Amino acid sequence: MNMSLNNLGIVRRNIVRADKFAVDRLARFGVATIHEAMGRVGLMKPYMRPIYPGAHACGTAVTVLLQPGDNWMMHVAAEQLQPGDVIVAACTSDCEDGFFGELLATSFRARGGGGLIIDAGVRDVKDLTAMEFPVFSRAINAKGTVKATLGSVNIPVVCAGALVNPGDVIVADDDGVVVVPGAIAPQVADAAEARETNEADKRQRFAAGELGLDMYKMRESLEKAGLKYVD
Amino acid sequence: MNMSLNNLGIVRRNIVRADKFAVDRLARFGVATIHEAMGRVGLMKPYMRPIYPGAHACGTAVTVLLQPGDNWMMHVAAEQLQPGDVIVAACTSDCEDGFFGELLATSFRARGGGGLIIDAGVRDVKDLTAMEFPVFSRAINAKGTVKATLGSVNIPVVCAGALVNPGDVIVADDDGVVVVPGAIAPQVADAAEARETNEADKRQRFAAGELGLDMYKMRESLEKAGLKYVD
Amino acid sequence: MNMSLNNLGIVRRNIVRADKFAVDRLARFGVATIHEAMGRVGLMKPYMRPIYPGAHACGTAVTVLLQPGDNWMMHVAAEQLQPGDVIVAACTSDCEDGFFGELLATSFRARGGGGLIIDAGVRDVKDLTAMEFPVFSRAINAKGTVKATLGSVNIPVVCAGALVNPGDVIVADDDGVVVVPGAIAPQVADAAEARETNEADKRQRFAAGELGLDMYKMRESLEKAGLKYVD
Amino acid sequence: MNMSLNNLGIVRRNIVRADKFAVDRLARFGVATIHEAMGRVGLMKPYMRPIYPGAHACGTAVTVLLQPGDNWMMHVAAEQLQPGDVIVAACTSDCEDGFFGELLATSFRARGGGGLIIDAGVRDVKDLTAMEFPVFSRAINAKGTVKATLGSVNIPVVCAGALVNPGDVIVADDDGVVVVPGAIAPQVADAAEARETNEADKRQRFAAGELGLDMYKMRESLEKAGLKYVD
Amino acid sequence: MNMSLNNLGIVRRNIVRADKFAVDRLARFGVATIHEAMGRVGLMKPYMRPIYPGAHACGTAVTVLLQPGDNWMMHVAAEQLQPGDVIVAACTSDCEDGFFGELLATSFRARGGGGLIIDAGVRDVKDLTAMEFPVFSRAINAKGTVKATLGSVNIPVVCAGALVNPGDVIVADDDGVVVVPGAIAPQVADAAEARETNEADKRQRFAAGELGLDMYKMRESLEKAGLKYVD
Amino acid sequence: MNMSLNNLGIVRRNIVRADKFAVDRLARFGVATIHEAMGRVGLMKPYMRPIYPGAHACGTAVTVLLQPGDNWMMHVAAEQLQPGDVIVAACTSDCEDGFFGELLATSFRARGGGGLIIDAGVRDVKDLTAMEFPVFSRAINAKGTVKATLGSVNIPVVCAGALVNPGDVIVADDDGVVVVPGAIAPQVADAAEARETNEADKRQRFAAGELGLDMYKMRESLEKAGLKYVD
Repeated sequence: MNMSLNNLGIVRRNIVRADKFAVDRLARFGVATIHEAMGRVGLMKPYMRPIYPGAHACGTAVTVLLQPGDNWMMHVAAEQLQPGDVIVAACTSDCEDGFFGELLATSFRARGGGGLIIDAGVRDVKDLTAMEFPVFSRAINAKGTVKATLGSVNIPVVCAGALVNPGDVIVADDDGVVVVPGAIAPQVADAAEARETNEADKRQRFAAGELGLDMYKMRESLEKAGLKYVD
Repeated sequence: MNMSLNNLGIVRRNIVRADKFAVDRLARFGVATIHEAMGRVGLMKPYMRPIYPGAHACGTAVTVLLQPGDNWMMHVAAEQLQPGDVIVAACTSDCEDGFFGELLATSFRARGGGGLIIDAGVRDVKDLTAMEFPVFSRAINAKGTVKATLGSVNIPVVCAGALVNPGDVIVADDDGVVVVPGAIAPQVADAAEARETNEADKRQRFAAGELGLDMYKMRESLEKAGLKYVD
Repeated sequence: MNMSLNNLGIVRRNIVRADKFAVDRLARFGVATIHEAMGRVGLMKPYMRPIYPGAHACGTAVTVLLQPGDNWMMHVAAEQLQPGDVIVAACTSDCEDGFFGELLATSFRARGGGGLIIDAGVRDVKDLTAMEFPVFSRAINAKGTVKATLGSVNIPVVCAGALVNPGDVIVADDDGVVVVPGAIAPQVADAAEARETNEADKRQRFAAGELGLDMYKMRESLEKAGLKYVD
Repeated sequence: MNMSLNNLGIVRRNIVRADKFAVDRLARFGVATIHEAMGRVGLMKPYMRPIYPGAHACGTAVTVLLQPGDNWMMHVAAEQLQPGDVIVAACTSDCEDGFFGELLATSFRARGGGGLIIDAGVRDVKDLTAMEFPVFSRAINAKGTVKATLGSVNIPVVCAGALVNPGDVIVADDDGVVVVPGAIAPQVADAAEARETNEADKRQRFAAGELGLDMYKMRESLEKAGLKYVD
Repeated sequence: MNMSLNNLGIVRRNIVRADKFAVDRLARFGVATIHEAMGRVGLMKPYMRPIYPGAHACGTAVTVLLQPGDNWMMHVAAEQLQPGDVIVAACTSDCEDGFFGELLATSFRARGGGGLIIDAGVRDVKDLTAMEFPVFSRAINAKGTVKATLGSVNIPVVCAGALVNPGDVIVADDDGVVVVPGAIAPQVADAAEARETNEADKRQRFAAGELGLDMYKMRESLEKAGLKYVD
Repeated sequence: MNMSLNNLGIVRRNIVRADKFAVDRLARFGVATIHEAMGRVGLMKPYMRPIYPGAHACGTAVTVLLQPGDNWMMHVAAEQLQPGDVIVAACTSDCEDGFFGELLATSFRARGGGGLIIDAGVRDVKDLTAMEFPVFSRAINAKGTVKATLGSVNIPVVCAGALVNPGDVIVADDDGVVVVPGAIAPQVADAAEARETNEADKRQRFAAGELGLDMYKMRESLEKAGLKYVD
């Protein structure tokens, strides 16, 4: 994804990061809750999986557009990282090579990077797991890459089906990866909070045996839709 | 899968559940053993995976036919659950949305439900894992669903390539999911038991270095088939 | 893909369509040429295929965001069509149902719609082919859909991996589908033209037996990169 | 799919074929129409594709359950064919080998077989196309098979996600493959006819520019659902 | 696939091409027949499809090992082509970019190249079809490639699951692609011829209604295997 | 993959195993390191995954060519195992049946087999995990297999896209599976060692915040390639 004739070969240095306080609030919610709070939008495709169970990342996006089989731009991106950032890497075409490993993770972490979301492959998963560096990827692959062709850093990218603008909030956990546009991060945090409060009550009632049919008053609408009970 | 002009919008309340004693016996065997005991049939496709290692479910099927992106019928199914049931959810077309999460799991468990087999996606896997609620699905996906269109409960469904009739026995473990028709559950348990006894002996002989070639007397048939040893 | 808390349930009536003259110019070039002219960006994923060989579409995008298994918004979109538009339909999650058939094609054509790009399934392909209504889709599927849940019309969507803003130029042929942002359509047409002129000369030289190695003066750079000829 | 301990190694000779008159009526309708007439059920998965455009089959199912890489049962099935039958072949596990080619097609045709639906691969597609023998498959593959292991003929099978009982009506065209249970074939033909009549009128109105919004009186329900028009 | 520490960056100029007479003989047989004649081995995976129906190629392999997103080596390969060669292109990792289009086809044809087998994507399919240049690929994709990283020419490659040595015979038709090792090309042609003669007789008998059960004398072995006929 | 007219039905008893000392040295390196040391070749496709996290195998290949749905040759291979061998199983066509379980693992281990690499499915993963028998496969599947058709043992095979000759070194860990041709095993071990030493230094510098841009002196080449920094 690219929006102008000269979108390749660009590094944007000044990006507007989402409000730090909103990011911190969003970090307390699960991906499913945030996605619901946004009106069921903003999710990456479900093939994006954590490289170890329990991986969790929440931060502001520094975006990278890679070329297939080429991770040159990852090094360019490292310089743009600030504490609290999460790298979001898309590729100009589907490629499952291993664009990232523990050396780059060491570099990213040293610059403040708090995780990686990559619509491609990664390697050194044993080391990355030991480092507890959260990575969400479409593949695990030992295959290395070259450094020969320009991509871009901090342009809008489509990553695993979701549009990500630099500075957006990225939240990732075992359920997947969600993108919260920076401008609405505070409202989404509010909505997530409200939703979570509401769910606590429901959980208790479900545990006591109450049915969703009654809790959500579905019986009438089901009957109206034509549902028939037979013996 | 649906067998009549009016198979959608139906909830069958009285189903014949497989014999409880046979279910309990089947619970002691692995999916591979049961599938062999049935003559190598009855398995769901291998894309059905547990959401956590070691998940295990065995019970009588309450079936649900869902519409893509719509989990309304899950709530209808909850009311039909009896202790010892396992929910088996199919969808009228391939869809990897997250039809199920920890709130529904709480409800299912409160009604006696012992697990979920779903040819679609689920979410809240961290919570479900903490609850030790066994789920076998084709995907993990934070994407939520609506409640707008009727499906059915307790009609025969095709789930992940296997026909499931309400009341059939479902056994699921790390190797996959197998369906045992209710009427033959006792015989399958017998056959599984016989098979397991037989395997214990083989295991010992293999461990001692005996070859399958000799144990199964294959040398002659291999030679007859034309196998040639060369140096 | 969705960029605000209230992006679902919206129909934008006034969109800025790309310059008609630029659209007409782009219609003369192939998708591969336009994609090259844009610097190798803007393509949808290669799983998007024409429903019949030789299908071709070029027009301004009216975008639709669908819900899985639900084509309600297609009817809402029909009203927004103007002559020269192409409908671009994305779905909030992967779904291969048949959201579109010859009745809707008849409606779209009557309103001036010149084709459909849909990241989902379509049906009635025999009729659509007979009508010569160009459709590019990820699947062919007789499975119908319901009309129950809101999506949106004319919001930015991610379709088959590419960001599409309403009014962008869509060009589709046997090689795939490319999106040209409205604002740069004239420059892209210029660049495509220049490229095509340049290729005519190359074609002649290739046909005469000249090698790319010589035409592009690659021998030196190959040697520098370490290429070795052995016998 | 298999429903008893001894479902493999069986050939059922006497099956109840759907009413010939109903089959002939169904042959006049498209797969999409029939699937709608059945309440949107009964379809095989969309990966089932005709080996040539315009292939069409309609007949009563003779079912075959194959083993992976083994087409022995195809020869057993040939003997069970009667004029007007269509062979429906499922496999005990996913396999894309070429189980069928022009020699078997010659045999099937000589016995009255009017087509093949196979959830696996076929070969000799050039010859099959020249013969105009309609085949719907998941793959085209030159890879041949052995004849070593028993499957069954004329037992219920799950083929490409749909349950098929011997004698059911199979209709297949460019849009896919639909299964009509034998017992309801006449009613489905009635419903398909009614639907088609109804569509002719709609087509004319759509062609005249009438919108689905008005034809189906959707405006009120869309507004009620919260749809907002913005400029 | 690569067999030594220095297999990248190599162009082998002198390769042993299969006997021309054997190649010409093989050109008369279908891929399925040749694969059978070789003992059911040597096929590429079935995802390799012709870009137009009826495409046919037969020639000696000039192999190319590409890097993902990089078609530099295609130009290097062009120089190595001799009349009667077919280019076989593998990639060091899965990539569906369009590595090849009509300009390269013009070049290949001018050098005597008779077709392309590529485990990746191609573009300009409309032009290639008009040129009747036979291409078998895993994808069609307008996405272009760079020229930056070395691969190799005329080393052994694994293409779509099949080992190809430079000079091997490649035969491709609507059924797929088969590789015949150069050294055994004459014997394979003999075996294919024998097989085809044999099939002509069978075809006639099948057409006359004779069953495979009788022609291949399968009834006894089926009974021995336990096949049961029931009514 | 198969290289002669009589490659099926063969068991080669005498194979040249890679140097034991080189194998032991290679066992100390990760798959990614070895693959880099070989010049980024030799990897199997990334769909090959360990059945439990942390699985590790390193040994000399005993190869098996299986038929779909048939594990007969696994028993033939067991006899050819020597301490330090790893079984590498390919299949003549894609098949995800469960060709291997804990009984065979017991047999392989008793004969000295140190792991299994299989381009197909396996079962009994719970038991295999408890045994700490390292298996790398494309699927987990309870579906059993027959013993009816010949394949081969210790012929060259293509497994998951990589050519494996009997006696080659196989190294497998969480990142995937790499094949080191026996003849170059010592040099690859040298190169891996050199690479690892070199990486230790880089790791320290990255951890201290040094950028890859500076460490690899990329700034000039990036600028030359046209990279532009914008604000």
